[in-house]
Amino acid sequence: MKSRVMVLEKFNKPLVLKEIEIPKLDKGQVLVKLEASGVCGSDVHMWKGEDPRIILPIILGHEGGGKVVEMKGKKFTAYSHELNIGDTILWNRGITCGRCYACTILKEPSLCQYRKTYGINISNSPKLHLDGCYSEYIILDRKTDIFKVNNSIDTAILVSASCSGATMAHGYDMFDKSLIGETIIVQGAGPLGVYAVAFAKNLGASNIIVIERSKPRLDLCKEFGATQLLNIDELSKSERKDRIMDITNGRGAALVVEAAGVKGVAEEGIKLVRKGGTYLSVGYAQPTGKEEIDFYADIVSRNLRIQGVWVSDTRHTMQAINLVMNNIGKFEKLITHRFSLENANKAISVMNKKEALKAVLTFKNNNTNLTSSN
Amino acid sequence: MKSRVMVLEKFNKPLVLKEIEIPKLDKGQVLVKLEASGVCGSDVHMWKGEDPRIILPIILGHEGGGKVVEMKGKKFTAYSHELNIGDTILWNRGITCGRCYACTILKEPSLCQYRKTYGINISNSPKLHLDGCYSEYIILDRKTDIFKVNNSIDTAILVSASCSGATMAHGYDMFDKSLIGETIIVQGAGPLGVYAVAFAKNLGASNIIVIERSKPRLDLCKEFGATQLLNIDELSKSERKDRIMDITNGRGAALVVEAAGVKGVAEEGIKLVRKGGTYLSVGYAQPTGKEEIDFYADIVSRNLRIQGVWVSDTRHTMQAINLVMNNIGKFEKLITHRFSLENANKAISVMNKKEALKAVLTFKNNNTNLTSSN
Amino acid sequence: MKSRVMVLEKFNKPLVLKEIEIPKLDKGQVLVKLEASGVCGSDVHMWKGEDPRIILPIILGHEGGGKVVEMKGKKFTAYSHELNIGDTILWNRGITCGRCYACTILKEPSLCQYRKTYGINISNSPKLHLDGCYSEYIILDRKTDIFKVNNSIDTAILVSASCSGATMAHGYDMFDKSLIGETIIVQGAGPLGVYAVAFAKNLGASNIIVIERSKPRLDLCKEFGATQLLNIDELSKSERKDRIMDITNGRGAALVVEAAGVKGVAEEGIKLVRKGGTYLSVGYAQPTGKEEIDFYADIVSRNLRIQGVWVSDTRHTMQAINLVMNNIGKFEKLITHRFSLENANKAISVMNKKEALKAVLTFKNNNTNLTSSN
Amino acid sequence: MKSRVMVLEKFNKPLVLKEIEIPKLDKGQVLVKLEASGVCGSDVHMWKGEDPRIILPIILGHEGGGKVVEMKGKKFTAYSHELNIGDTILWNRGITCGRCYACTILKEPSLCQYRKTYGINISNSPKLHLDGCYSEYIILDRKTDIFKVNNSIDTAILVSASCSGATMAHGYDMFDKSLIGETIIVQGAGPLGVYAVAFAKNLGASNIIVIERSKPRLDLCKEFGATQLLNIDELSKSERKDRIMDITNGRGAALVVEAAGVKGVAEEGIKLVRKGGTYLSVGYAQPTGKEEIDFYADIVSRNLRIQGVWVSDTRHTMQAINLVMNNIGKFEKLITHRFSLENANKAISVMNKKEALKAVLTFKNNNTNLTSSN
Repeated sequence: MKSRVMVLEKFNKPLVLKEIEIPKLDKGQVLVKLEASGVCGSDVHMWKGEDPRIILPIILGHEGGGKVVEMKGKKFTAYSHELNIGDTILWNRGITCGRCYACTILKEPSLCQYRKTYGINISNSPKLHLDGCYSEYIILDRKTDIFKVNNSIDTAILVSASCSGATMAHGYDMFDKSLIGETIIVQGAGPLGVYAVAFAKNLGASNIIVIERSKPRLDLCKEFGATQLLNIDELSKSERKDRIMDITNGRGAALVVEAAGVKGVAEEGIKLVRKGGTYLSVGYAQPTGKEEIDFYADIVSRNLRIQGVWVSDTRHTMQAINLVMNNIGKFEKLITHRFSLENANKAISVMNKKEALKAVLTFKNNNTNLTSSN
Repeated sequence: MKSRVMVLEKFNKPLVLKEIEIPKLDKGQVLVKLEASGVCGSDVHMWKGEDPRIILPIILGHEGGGKVVEMKGKKFTAYSHELNIGDTILWNRGITCGRCYACTILKEPSLCQYRKTYGINISNSPKLHLDGCYSEYIILDRKTDIFKVNNSIDTAILVSASCSGATMAHGYDMFDKSLIGETIIVQGAGPLGVYAVAFAKNLGASNIIVIERSKPRLDLCKEFGATQLLNIDELSKSERKDRIMDITNGRGAALVVEAAGVKGVAEEGIKLVRKGGTYLSVGYAQPTGKEEIDFYADIVSRNLRIQGVWVSDTRHTMQAINLVMNNIGKFEKLITHRFSLENANKAISVMNKKEALKAVLTFKNNNTNLTSSN
Repeated sequence: MKSRVMVLEKFNKPLVLKEIEIPKLDKGQVLVKLEASGVCGSDVHMWKGEDPRIILPIILGHEGGGKVVEMKGKKFTAYSHELNIGDTILWNRGITCGRCYACTILKEPSLCQYRKTYGINISNSPKLHLDGCYSEYIILDRKTDIFKVNNSIDTAILVSASCSGATMAHGYDMFDKSLIGETIIVQGAGPLGVYAVAFAKNLGASNIIVIERSKPRLDLCKEFGATQLLNIDELSKSERKDRIMDITNGRGAALVVEAAGVKGVAEEGIKLVRKGGTYLSVGYAQPTGKEEIDFYADIVSRNLRIQGVWVSDTRHTMQAINLVMNNIGKFEKLITHRFSLENANKAISVMNKKEALKAVLTFKNNNTNLTSSN
Repeated sequence: MKSRVMVLEKFNKPLVLKEIEIPKLDKGQVLVKLEASGVCGSDVHMWKGEDPRIILPIILGHEGGGKVVEMKGKKFTAYSHELNIGDTILWNRGITCGRCYACTILKEPSLCQYRKTYGINISNSPKLHLDGCYSEYIILDRKTDIFKVNNSIDTAILVSASCSGATMAHGYDMFDKSLIGETIIVQGAGPLGVYAVAFAKNLGASNIIVIERSKPRLDLCKEFGATQLLNIDELSKSERKDRIMDITNGRGAALVVEAAGVKGVAEEGIKLVRKGGTYLSVGYAQPTGKEEIDFYADIVSRNLRIQGVWVSDTRHTMQAINLVMNNIGKFEKLITHRFSLENANKAISVMNKKEALKAVLTFKNNNTNLTSSN
């Protein structure tokens, strides 16, 4: 049996459609027929050659969901559920060693020094493997943590839970204060920011303020529960601060979630946190230079906390899946573009140009006719 | 009855010895005959006119301890102990409103918007009040939280617990992880830094590394349990980092405590924190300009936490007093200089020149002869 | 000016309608014209003489809300909002000393040894004071923590926030784990239980199971987000356990909230908690005898936590008010019975017979005609 | 090569000395020449046939330490240290799956449903394996978490860290409050209780009260830092309570650690916890019947927490090893009896009769002459 795949052979060049033979499974492996594959903002960076982890050629795609086609070994379970052929599954996109200091002593697998990610560096070799999601099929290693989901679900809606959703869940997991009735500010309304709004709403926040440039993204946040939308094209930095101080009786927000990763965002955001509050920095996933922080005025004299958040683990993936399942109608709207596998280059293009909030490759209707296109 | 006091009448000029009449107590007030008054580094800033809270004339001194002379009202208690004339007491140096958002909702009285401090701004008026500790007597307001201590204690050893000790206790109170067997780095070995070492030792840390310039201060830290002393005059920044990475298997420290408040210290210290660890910033109590922080490399990709720590409350004062009581022999060595009240200007001078680690005005032997000098 | 009040003169006898003169305010006091007064289950116990704190005669009622009529003193604020005549307010039903070990060191005012409650023991004297809510007017002491709410709100919906709502907020405040996607069981669907469901829903729980006898109460819980209703008249104890293990893959619930206070409930509930989970006991507010707990099987070998929850403080009152404000339509349905002041005895009767889920005395439309009845 | 082993062939009968062939290692396995093997109280229960996990014949012993003799595979590391032949090591006594709900979502490997323990049920088969510590050699599975320790250490002092030490570390890890200056009570002064005292001292407690019958055990606790010793043969239950209330100003202790596992101990201990405090139950590792708990009086009205503690994981083993390394002189005194391998039956006997506080089989001097006896 073969799998059609989209291969990144040269940086900045179109992915190439190929067919590769599906190898025999090793013990513990699971073969999945993909139904959807999210196109992450970081895929664009990888495609451009900006991520040092990428070894060419590679099948990109670390946000996948699909149906179990084959399992090699005795009994497979997914968190107390028996796993069977035909089941719809998602999985933790990372594989961790389970043995290092981070894994066993800190219990923070996100910091595992041997962490590998599907579609990025699982096989870590110049030979092409079925280990990315821009593909009809993917082979999951026996160490992959698998979640069984309702078979009737539109998998395309769920896949972002395994990346931006899980990362944001990780952030909220490290924020150990009550949000009931509190004010939260979210900087940036890409997928990370939308998840930040969704979690804030589901954790009882009363005011959810979003700072963002794109009108459609702000509108989507409103559907997720945002109560105030601050468009940075319409309001200056000082006007935004004034607005927020008005809303919060001059105090600032209990929690400011940075989901933008753009130079200067931290400098602005930290000043919007109320005394004793937290600045949760999630978006700086690529180098952007330095932020100038006044430790006396902004950190010490205000008892402020800054918490960095790096990727996620299985716990957070489950939390994000649960969040999406509880709000499936809303998350459907997060997916602004759908493409067939062959049109993965278009997907990367709309993400690159920021025309899409979230693009997904979706193969659900391809069951019988794998050659159908978007 | 009169009290001899040292008054700050003009900034940068010697304090002036005066005698002022002790007024009648209001209901709930306590008159204390001081036995010791710590000279805090911040007193030097106030003396120079660098603290906007100071209204002249004023009696400085916010670290005091002494004996109860008179109480106006019925029954006084200090945390379940009956309070009597002759009892030796310490107290929380701040008075908070108990009603504002910080006091009742956040339960962080350190952030109380109406917080006032003895020897700084209790009375907040240009009239001289007996509300600072550079004095024979002080009048404690009814809202003051009082601790009764063993009458035989040398109060001079205890007074720093109510300022630098309590502030450092506040920091550790906000650090909610286990220190058993961990590595801790302390930046700066003034009183704050010494308390940081003492707490680390009393919380089970295995490696306690101190970065500091003064050899005597480093030596004192060793007596408090520091395991590695890094002299910044002998080791360059990169040598210090190398040394720390050697000690920690290349990981860095679980906790780095900033107790220096000098430009560049945060930039260095954050890079010494291990992934998933905490940078506790306590020392930046005055403006020192901005630190340049790389959010991607230093905060986000390393899951780092920065926690600012501002002053303290009654809970922390009690923790610091308990720490000192458990280690009284060591803390005696923290006091490098003792002066009589009349010699307060000398005390400020040795603190200003950093000849003293900690200077204390001490009146214990003055009981019968109030005119005796140092 | 006079206030009509309903006075408890003898236990188990009808409250007596009286008119008492409104005294001149002391400094810091606020006179409130009540709009609504909740009738709490504990009021029934007090009416029966089962609460040793009650000294007769007394005006019961500790859940009140209304409009500011008069304030004695300069400037009043309610958490950064200026307080003015005509403002609608709620308040923390308890007054605490702010000075004792619980208040300052533990920062748990709920455990203040001098805590007093409106309508229970504020004045603590056999003389009648305007300090209960079964009255047209109440005088709030200067130490009362006051919340200003939207003037257009139906206060009757809000008043339970200051008692059962705040107590349940206290419980969730002590539960420091994430509820996103988790299963929660609530034992008992009185007002406490309904708040437990509402908080669980607002904190992101996926499965909310309610165990209760009354069909209408179960139905109300469903409106608040309960996902499974277990009627104890229809299902035996072992059937309930089986059902729960089915729902939770044999694990049990991350959190079981006890909101029943009936003998045997803890014995059942603890066995429904999943390993590593928490049993939050809130309902045992009166003696009910002993529960038999197998420490090996139920606590130690399952890493279980039991957390008792006693009353609440200002922080929790604010959290509960915020919860109600975010779900005002649902909480309106919690109020099953409304009575005029004169009909307070009927209110106590329907609460005593458990005909009412929540009865409220409401005076909102009585502004001009105080004699109108239910 | 052969290993001499002591085999449990029949319950309640003497262990039998045998020699068994050391099999070839599988990939990832490590062969260890044991230097010391702790005899745990639970070994006595297993020897009596009271532990259902035991399948005969078996080599008991789950507390081991020794030197690496052989490793099968490429590169072995123990937390960033390269592992070499001749290195002295300890290890986590349990092996967990790393995949189940407890391991990945709760991050509580102690609750792993597939957890296996050396010397108890690792191989889980009626065939004899080199997987217990009453043996010259043990083979560690590739999933074992290994700690490298100083080669000069007397391993006998360390081995209890991997069982009672780690379990107590787990308990303190779940107690997230500051102990600086607090009062702690420890019920029972077996190895668990001694570790409870040692942790309390190393975490800054001021008062450490031990309740126990054995005079020598109480005396040992004093060396570990206990400040008050209450002998239950000399003081009645009510006298003990009176004494504790005297020490604590009538409040009770912030933390009571149950390390006895005897019927009635929880009933007594819970009443010694201060309002808002914690009862940490660690000792009930075998069934002892039920404790009668008054939820109203003891749990709810006092805001009390009960936390059960079950076994431990690698994180806790490391914490306990660090504690012992910091206090090696004291922990040497915990070992009251040392025996050679052949005298394992004597070791079980002194543990059974409670003549020993802690017995250890020690082979350190046996390197050249394996037939030497105690």
